[in-house]
Amino acid sequence: MARTSTRRPVVKINLNMAGAPRRGPDELAAEEPLEIRVRKRPLAVTMRTPGQDIDLTIGFLLSEGIISSAEDVVTAQLCAGTDTPNTYNVVDVTLGADVPPPVTDPSRNFYTTSSCGVCGKASIDAVRTRSQFDVSGDPTVVPAGTLAALPDLLRAAQRTFDRTGGLHAAGLFTAAGELVVLREDVGRHNAVDKVIGWAAREGRLPLTGHLLLVSGRASFELTQKAWMAGIPLLAAVSAPSTLAAELADEAGMTLVGFLRGATMNVYTATHRVTV
Amino acid sequence: MARTSTRRPVVKINLNMAGAPRRGPDELAAEEPLEIRVRKRPLAVTMRTPGQDIDLTIGFLLSEGIISSAEDVVTAQLCAGTDTPNTYNVVDVTLGADVPPPVTDPSRNFYTTSSCGVCGKASIDAVRTRSQFDVSGDPTVVPAGTLAALPDLLRAAQRTFDRTGGLHAAGLFTAAGELVVLREDVGRHNAVDKVIGWAAREGRLPLTGHLLLVSGRASFELTQKAWMAGIPLLAAVSAPSTLAAELADEAGMTLVGFLRGATMNVYTATHRVTV
Repeated sequence: MARTSTRRPVVKINLNMAGAPRRGPDELAAEEPLEIRVRKRPLAVTMRTPGQDIDLTIGFLLSEGIISSAEDVVTAQLCAGTDTPNTYNVVDVTLGADVPPPVTDPSRNFYTTSSCGVCGKASIDAVRTRSQFDVSGDPTVVPAGTLAALPDLLRAAQRTFDRTGGLHAAGLFTAAGELVVLREDVGRHNAVDKVIGWAAREGRLPLTGHLLLVSGRASFELTQKAWMAGIPLLAAVSAPSTLAAELADEAGMTLVGFLRGATMNVYTATHRVTV
Repeated sequence: MARTSTRRPVVKINLNMAGAPRRGPDELAAEEPLEIRVRKRPLAVTMRTPGQDIDLTIGFLLSEGIISSAEDVVTAQLCAGTDTPNTYNVVDVTLGADVPPPVTDPSRNFYTTSSCGVCGKASIDAVRTRSQFDVSGDPTVVPAGTLAALPDLLRAAQRTFDRTGGLHAAGLFTAAGELVVLREDVGRHNAVDKVIGWAAREGRLPLTGHLLLVSGRASFELTQKAWMAGIPLLAAVSAPSTLAAELADEAGMTLVGFLRGATMNVYTATHRVTV
């Protein structure tokens, strides 16, 4: 079920070339909804690129603090089979008997605490409360030259992007700059969930000594996911947001932004990047 | 309360220049949670760049089909004042007495229908059912040369991007290529909601004869929002997804992707782009 891309007819216009527009096929990145159900109850719907859906589910549950390891998931299967036809767009999860069921009341969601309403500080507190890993003491050090080489490695490994030009990527690397796993998705949060879910299934959490590179910007959500997986360094090709930097600061996680060519900005825990 | 960006200290590394890394301030795009409450009940939390929060709220409610015009909103105010300190991160909405309250049960969300489970087709059907505007008959025609000029106009108008390098933009243009309104946000869906909410408050819906340009890719969600606002042409600087193209096809909306320099791809309703 690797429907990662689909062909569609398209009219290609190039104003610099004489003659009529060209008609031809274009390869588009696939986007389909995925519903995550826990104990038959819908928990979330995400628009994602099909593929690695079990990893996506486990990564989502982990980074939302619903499970603490892949062992908390007893079964996770694509579609319970009650729909006709089977769309392979539902993952049904059974959690261990000792795992508290997820809270689906939006008034008690991840970002809100009753004490202070909703604000960046409360969002950071919520992640700190839920994260089971302390990344602040992680002794990983990465030479800036190693970091500078990663975007090209990520790009070279992006197979679906080559066809569609339309996918975000998340790559897990060792501190020596070796690519461990790469995942692509129309949603950058999904790409990161797929990486984290894979690592959880492989029994690799916490991801001490690793770094995560994302092809776009670093948001609060992606920083949260990196912390929940125990990753000490998050690098982004584009800009971070204020709340991403504040969360990384709180976590003691190194946040690198604008990683392009020979240049980069290090926002937090700067001691992990050596020149 | 225009906290659109904040300064942070940063270490700037340039491997092509000799000497120690430079330390200095960097301007980051602000990201804060916004909770949308309807009749005091939390409906959604989105991570957004503060500013135009009432427009964001109205645009969100419109594009989710919860309201059909700005008149359905009786009051919408930033923070009810019950929190100390007031974080300006809560918008409390009162709907008209005849407006059905939003459904918050995730098992009955926008993308799911009981008949077919969850799939792209069901997602498209859900939008078609809820959209009050028919864009298929919109007679708008735009020369490709006009379209080609828009990304530079959008970029030139992006004030916060200039400082932070970190914001998505959505711009509403006339068919003649004049910028009507531009909004920036860390989340591209928020930027579009802010545009649509502004237009709704101005009594401009449906946005017949207009086009929407987004700085990133065209996803299902952005296409949905454009349709819900009655926009006949959606253009994106980057790639569309399969489901975005399928939804635009269903709507009779023109979808333009990879709008860069003199080149562009027209995926659907190609008659609206003339060469």
